[in-house]
Amino acid sequence: MRPSKRAADELRPVRIERGVSRHAEGSCLVRFGATEVLCTASLEDKVPGWLRGGGKGWVTAEYGMLPRSTTERMRREASSGRQSGRTLEIQRLIGRSLRAVMDMGKLGERQITVDCDVLQADGGTRTASITGGWVALHDCVRWMAARDMFVSEPLIDHVAAVSCGVYAGATVLDLDYPEDSEAETDANFVITGGGKLVEVQASAEGDPFTEEQLGEMLALAKTGVARLVELQKLAIA
Amino acid sequence: MRPSKRAADELRPVRIERGVSRHAEGSCLVRFGATEVLCTASLEDKVPGWLRGGGKGWVTAEYGMLPRSTTERMRREASSGRQSGRTLEIQRLIGRSLRAVMDMGKLGERQITVDCDVLQADGGTRTASITGGWVALHDCVRWMAARDMFVSEPLIDHVAAVSCGVYAGATVLDLDYPEDSEAETDANFVITGGGKLVEVQASAEGDPFTEEQLGEMLALAKTGVARLVELQKLAIA
Amino acid sequence: MRPSKRAADELRPVRIERGVSRHAEGSCLVRFGATEVLCTASLEDKVPGWLRGGGKGWVTAEYGMLPRSTTERMRREASSGRQSGRTLEIQRLIGRSLRAVMDMGKLGERQITVDCDVLQADGGTRTASITGGWVALHDCVRWMAARDMFVSEPLIDHVAAVSCGVYAGATVLDLDYPEDSEAETDANFVITGGGKLVEVQASAEGDPFTEEQLGEMLALAKTGVARLVELQKLAIA
Amino acid sequence: MRPSKRAADELRPVRIERGVSRHAEGSCLVRFGATEVLCTASLEDKVPGWLRGGGKGWVTAEYGMLPRSTTERMRREASSGRQSGRTLEIQRLIGRSLRAVMDMGKLGERQITVDCDVLQADGGTRTASITGGWVALHDCVRWMAARDMFVSEPLIDHVAAVSCGVYAGATVLDLDYPEDSEAETDANFVITGGGKLVEVQASAEGDPFTEEQLGEMLALAKTGVARLVELQKLAIA
Amino acid sequence: MRPSKRAADELRPVRIERGVSRHAEGSCLVRFGATEVLCTASLEDKVPGWLRGGGKGWVTAEYGMLPRSTTERMRREASSGRQSGRTLEIQRLIGRSLRAVMDMGKLGERQITVDCDVLQADGGTRTASITGGWVALHDCVRWMAARDMFVSEPLIDHVAAVSCGVYAGATVLDLDYPEDSEAETDANFVITGGGKLVEVQASAEGDPFTEEQLGEMLALAKTGVARLVELQKLAIA
Amino acid sequence: MRPSKRAADELRPVRIERGVSRHAEGSCLVRFGATEVLCTASLEDKVPGWLRGGGKGWVTAEYGMLPRSTTERMRREASSGRQSGRTLEIQRLIGRSLRAVMDMGKLGERQITVDCDVLQADGGTRTASITGGWVALHDCVRWMAARDMFVSEPLIDHVAAVSCGVYAGATVLDLDYPEDSEAETDANFVITGGGKLVEVQASAEGDPFTEEQLGEMLALAKTGVARLVELQKLAIA
Repeated sequence: MRPSKRAADELRPVRIERGVSRHAEGSCLVRFGATEVLCTASLEDKVPGWLRGGGKGWVTAEYGMLPRSTTERMRREASSGRQSGRTLEIQRLIGRSLRAVMDMGKLGERQITVDCDVLQADGGTRTASITGGWVALHDCVRWMAARDMFVSEPLIDHVAAVSCGVYAGATVLDLDYPEDSEAETDANFVITGGGKLVEVQASAEGDPFTEEQLGEMLALAKTGVARLVELQKLAIA
Repeated sequence: MRPSKRAADELRPVRIERGVSRHAEGSCLVRFGATEVLCTASLEDKVPGWLRGGGKGWVTAEYGMLPRSTTERMRREASSGRQSGRTLEIQRLIGRSLRAVMDMGKLGERQITVDCDVLQADGGTRTASITGGWVALHDCVRWMAARDMFVSEPLIDHVAAVSCGVYAGATVLDLDYPEDSEAETDANFVITGGGKLVEVQASAEGDPFTEEQLGEMLALAKTGVARLVELQKLAIA
Repeated sequence: MRPSKRAADELRPVRIERGVSRHAEGSCLVRFGATEVLCTASLEDKVPGWLRGGGKGWVTAEYGMLPRSTTERMRREASSGRQSGRTLEIQRLIGRSLRAVMDMGKLGERQITVDCDVLQADGGTRTASITGGWVALHDCVRWMAARDMFVSEPLIDHVAAVSCGVYAGATVLDLDYPEDSEAETDANFVITGGGKLVEVQASAEGDPFTEEQLGEMLALAKTGVARLVELQKLAIA
Repeated sequence: MRPSKRAADELRPVRIERGVSRHAEGSCLVRFGATEVLCTASLEDKVPGWLRGGGKGWVTAEYGMLPRSTTERMRREASSGRQSGRTLEIQRLIGRSLRAVMDMGKLGERQITVDCDVLQADGGTRTASITGGWVALHDCVRWMAARDMFVSEPLIDHVAAVSCGVYAGATVLDLDYPEDSEAETDANFVITGGGKLVEVQASAEGDPFTEEQLGEMLALAKTGVARLVELQKLAIA
Repeated sequence: MRPSKRAADELRPVRIERGVSRHAEGSCLVRFGATEVLCTASLEDKVPGWLRGGGKGWVTAEYGMLPRSTTERMRREASSGRQSGRTLEIQRLIGRSLRAVMDMGKLGERQITVDCDVLQADGGTRTASITGGWVALHDCVRWMAARDMFVSEPLIDHVAAVSCGVYAGATVLDLDYPEDSEAETDANFVITGGGKLVEVQASAEGDPFTEEQLGEMLALAKTGVARLVELQKLAIA
Repeated sequence: MRPSKRAADELRPVRIERGVSRHAEGSCLVRFGATEVLCTASLEDKVPGWLRGGGKGWVTAEYGMLPRSTTERMRREASSGRQSGRTLEIQRLIGRSLRAVMDMGKLGERQITVDCDVLQADGGTRTASITGGWVALHDCVRWMAARDMFVSEPLIDHVAAVSCGVYAGATVLDLDYPEDSEAETDANFVITGGGKLVEVQASAEGDPFTEEQLGEMLALAKTGVARLVELQKLAIA
């Protein structure tokens, strides 16, 4: 029995609220249960130095947690003077995931930065960030389309993410914090709208896991992401 | 004529939404027009080293802006590795303002950290932070009261803040960004519920200002803060 | 009775010694009683990036304290790797104050950096820095004039600063360290030669203060700055 | 055809040279083809603060690359003042992998730090680090055993790692740099001596990958790690 | 012929002004020609962690240059966030030099920090710092003596320093900046009152130098330091 | 009697293994007894900003120690976020030493960076770095010669370095760690193939030393470096 009484393959209630920022070219507030992430997409006319002059664009992501998004207040990274390894790892993951569904040549020599800031954390902040980050990115691309900024559509597909884990011996979908902190194995899957895999990251927190468990988690993740993609489609409709 | 059509002594619509964080001991989302600040108050059982063993508590504040809270995306301070002078200046101001209405002996040897994170900026983020920060602090003190954590009330009075400025030659109340970026003089006033002054900070951005203009701004600020204190009272009722 | 036996409206002995640096385009050693600040003005042919190509110049300031300028040795900021919030706040104040009396168009596309380094501290280091910084700036402008570097005079007016406070219930002028550390309210006023206000910063350290006290402090500050401007005139004569 | 002419399931020549450091409690130089990593295990009598007093130990890892271990010289991280996200990500992975086969209670309140420094890089530095890091850790534990520092064996199992990828449409084992830089998908598998999974990290660099490809890569990885564990056994025999 | 017309073995005019800081336990302003260094000695009751509980004291030094102590304004190290290699090298040299004449056991478990801040630079700032730093240290020890803080004298001997160089083919004493920037070889000698060597640092800036030149420089340095020690004795008389 | 039983003028066994890096333009692994330093020379087509456009090149060096190159594990400088004063001092010394035998005009507008990374430390890491660094630099210059990258030979002479010290009252050559940690005086000499001096750095660790001792150490160093230059010649033959 999961602490939240959810079925093994049941997502938390997911809400996606678009257009929450008056300044950003695209934005949404995404909630996976009590987890809340504010995602904004910012368009800039310059690309990183190593891309300059090549006619291709770039999508990058940054991630942060508000100091009291967590049960205990965390130290503010701006004040400690460095981003933690966890933060850097997550923002690299978000960036890779979003780039997987973007055609950089069609984007043109521009950069879109997707900021994912966790207002409240209850497990799954990175999967919520990818899922909501895609919506912000989508709206930024629509903003560009409305201004005729590209010739052919650069956004290739949906992408969304969900966590799975082995909790109390069973494989379950979309871990919340009470599950996440107890899980023997914790995995994150990033999957496209077409059902192909972008990222698989599975870690044994306690005992190692089996190939069978990996297979079960992947199956759960595929149904979970399919549902998240539906919700993205509803949100942007 | 102000860009927003407001009268010279007219505040923007102010909303204070309490209890927005499931983790923090006190929290609110405060809006001054399009400016939105998430304020949380976090209680800890330890005080800074120089206060240890004295039986007195401390209230401190931290301030940050989300990278795309502004018209143009700003660099994330966690990534640049240092908080700007402006950030440090504002969080010192918020801390001093809130300490002015707290009796540290009655608080006991504990620290309350008030985090003010700007989700969206349209001028007046520091005054919104102080005004909302007080509500978060109040709720944290109520949380403590419910747990019999002190003998006599440590929160002495309300405190709120508002900006004034000389815009197009006239003194006006509660500048939004379009006014703030054009104002000849920009001033912030922090005033208690009892109408006494905690902080006055007035800066000529263009031409220096006169004693008369300072007096006019102070008069506007007193009416503005009185209104903000009423709104605080409504919010906590 | 003030610890120094001074009357409420009495400045400490102020001395301004010009030309103390063989390298700087302008320099002075300014003393407010036992407070000693070495001010240098350095001319450079480049401006900050955001001003480039616009034909306008810039005046900026940096502030530092020698580690043993204070009663207890402070940690060296170069060694701790960051400037404190107080340092950044003060150098921003000095810069704004000096810019208020400089016509950037007439200066031309050049930057003047005024460094204010506190050799010995006894209260009022920021007001001494502004008062002495103006003299260094003036001499730098004279250095430029001697080389025909501008067509019409860019230095518009004098500017000087003084602190006031509420000490033992009375409003007093130009606090030294023993007063400053005990004052209920501490205020700094930056005023031009023409008597107009550039900056007003008043903070309650203990109990909040009244509008009347603010008015009294402002009146004291105006007489104090008028005297400081006379001393600047004597110094540059 | 692979650039190195290897078969799809063929590891590069792997060499493990033990006892290369006269100071470290355990050490080895591991080579996966031209990739060379110096691994040392350092025993300390203190644990991180959050573990203190609990009687349990800790295993952690640090990772670095010599500036000219790569084709182009990289900036030295000690000089740039921060470790890159990639570095932090890899050292977190190495640490988690080694902890998965260590019983922290049996280790006692001590920390073992495994340093993995890349002398020469040709792809697969993280998998070589885990594989060689285990040998250094093993020898450190033997060093402790020789001094009767624990009652029952804390090292539970072997652990080793290998990369797989989709290169030119085919799934291949143990990518070298020419393959790694061209691969459509890049995956790392950390597997115990008993064949259970500790970490799976698969990333699409170009097109997303399929469940079938993930399965093929996992199958390759299992045979590869089984071979690496044999080589570890030979090395420590 | 030297630019300053001095004889090859002639020091610049040296002045040592004691007691220039009202806060420091010992202080002096030392001038070697146009080079001016403010030296303060600060006594603290704590020692570095690795000395704690051993009953021995420590002497350390810090060094800094005011931004416009030089011909061209330098970047402020507090602002750049790190001390340069040159700064660290010099302050390590000053510390070692002063420790060479202090008996740490007799000092007791206390630390004296000697800060050497260059107000104006014209070559020889490190040698002036050591020479003046000794006077500040001496006065700090006298301050302690006046308070009966030790049983037997911890300050063993004088120590002073001077530079020599090969300029225009000739060996000369006490280089000023015009010589220093042109010298083929630059050397610094730290020598005790008893004429023994504490530090010798000689560097070829252009062509390497000969053993004979090293000998000539050493001979010059011995007479120079003997003269500096006389001046120290006069200063403390 | 030296701990290693060596004669006073006896070097440790020195080995120089060239071509140890497949990526670097020049490289060697140099051993002075148990001290092992990996030296690589990296050629780049750009020079530091202050040299740009002048047609001259630059040689610079960086130095690092692996965390467990030492008896006790040291903190990794990449992780602490700053290079120590000792590290900066040593890498400046290596750079100056190598530049002393390079004609920058003949090198052309290119930079060679010599990285010296200590794999194992047993005293004399800086002297081994200079001695081995020269070999790496030499091979880099040969690499350039093979590609006709200069008209006339830029490498003027050999350069090598050795330490001397006063150990147990006697002057000895090439200190290992047990001697170095006990020596009263520690000196490093950098000498060209032609026997001229590039750097002399002698420090009293305990009692000051005499002119005679300096002379004895210099004599030892000259024979030591002559032997090291022979070994360099054998290595590059």
